[in-house]
Amino acid sequence: MAIDDDIAFANRLADAAGEVIRPYFRRKIDIVDKGRGEAMFDPVTEADKRAEEAIRALIKRERPDDGILGEEYGEHEGSSGRVWVIDPVDGTRAFITGQTQWGTLIALNEGGSPVLGVLDQPVLRERFIATAAGAFLHSAEGKIRLGTRACASVAEAVLMSTHPWNYFDESEQLAFRALSQTCLLTRFGGDCYAYGLLAMGFVDLVVEARLKPWDIQALIPIVEASGGVVTDWRGQPCFEGGRVIAAGDKRAHAAALKFLAG
Amino acid sequence: MAIDDDIAFANRLADAAGEVIRPYFRRKIDIVDKGRGEAMFDPVTEADKRAEEAIRALIKRERPDDGILGEEYGEHEGSSGRVWVIDPVDGTRAFITGQTQWGTLIALNEGGSPVLGVLDQPVLRERFIATAAGAFLHSAEGKIRLGTRACASVAEAVLMSTHPWNYFDESEQLAFRALSQTCLLTRFGGDCYAYGLLAMGFVDLVVEARLKPWDIQALIPIVEASGGVVTDWRGQPCFEGGRVIAAGDKRAHAAALKFLAG
Repeated sequence: MAIDDDIAFANRLADAAGEVIRPYFRRKIDIVDKGRGEAMFDPVTEADKRAEEAIRALIKRERPDDGILGEEYGEHEGSSGRVWVIDPVDGTRAFITGQTQWGTLIALNEGGSPVLGVLDQPVLRERFIATAAGAFLHSAEGKIRLGTRACASVAEAVLMSTHPWNYFDESEQLAFRALSQTCLLTRFGGDCYAYGLLAMGFVDLVVEARLKPWDIQALIPIVEASGGVVTDWRGQPCFEGGRVIAAGDKRAHAAALKFLAG
Repeated sequence: MAIDDDIAFANRLADAAGEVIRPYFRRKIDIVDKGRGEAMFDPVTEADKRAEEAIRALIKRERPDDGILGEEYGEHEGSSGRVWVIDPVDGTRAFITGQTQWGTLIALNEGGSPVLGVLDQPVLRERFIATAAGAFLHSAEGKIRLGTRACASVAEAVLMSTHPWNYFDESEQLAFRALSQTCLLTRFGGDCYAYGLLAMGFVDLVVEARLKPWDIQALIPIVEASGGVVTDWRGQPCFEGGRVIAAGDKRAHAAALKFLAG
């Protein structure tokens, strides 16, 4: 099946990125501030750039008709109607502080929506990979099928986000905080790994804003094939990023939207 | 040397706790809310209780004259002037959400101050252990000597805390946020592992409040023997917990205190 070829190729892309990234982790490395002059420190490292180069080189050689959209090197137009949407190190702040909530994100987008998603954590050697046929976690402990847990209401929900104020404007902060105060528990510092925890059934809601397409497209198949739902804060598709809410249970999603839809 | 015996025994305590805890991680387990009726959800699990029982049983058998102070089962008076101060799972919220920032904390307190500290992460199989002779990280990659990094000012500092508002009252939140806005970068969700990242030289400041003695005593030798400093928000000893600031560099510590000493 074509999708099996795509899965095998996505695994090779993630392998290649992981090989590049691992030696940089927890080393003293150069960090460049992409946001210099802007409000927020926006770090990028050699690991980000070299990993995206490795991924792009493989795609250009083996899938020359496919397009590429990557965080560090932008858009490469293809002719196949298929685009690989990639973030080599999503969560660079986690990466440079020695934490492991970062990951390599790889989506295959066909006709505008992601049909395959990979979240790879090369240091923990955990790989989340999903298509419409299912979502799986591959790790040292083997392969397990992912599934979200039931969560009927916001009051029962564990909520995650990366940061309480960096990525939210003032009205978003207020909406988020109202939701948080109704939830059972809120954890910050999640980065892309928060979506993995949701797919595993340990987190019920992930709420973020200011995402780019490469921050979210790989995560959508993982959450959806685990039984969850990912939309913007109005319940619409969020392939382009922006304000995003992921939920493991449609009931918690509907209830949380009431806090966010404003 | 007596301290070598103590280190060997502390390693056995951590081994015993890890054996108990590992099977509970990322399983569907019962969670009891210790804070029922209070403002904040305060979870405790069988992992917390069984691990502390294992540690206490070993101490009572092999060090019958030593005292014990543990999060789950309180104080056991000894006659030796030495007290084992333990938190079997520090970071239960991380634990129940499938994250790895939790750890087993074991301090040996002699004459009122901790002389030996262990932070053990049994799932990642990382163990931080320190005495006045030095701080070390044992992991699959071997044994490395820990050392904090230079950080001359708050503007260069990476700041960590567990949560932006759960553990801070209103004035503490304001002080923390003013400090955070001056720092290069703030990461939340650290739990005890944040102090390990500081000892490794990837984080410069950890600021927390409402700590108990067992939340901090094990971490003090780890930070100090790595070249850092741990005090309360007025620069005084913090063996009893409360408001705590850890810094990798005395200059960043002094500068950060100005935001917190209020």
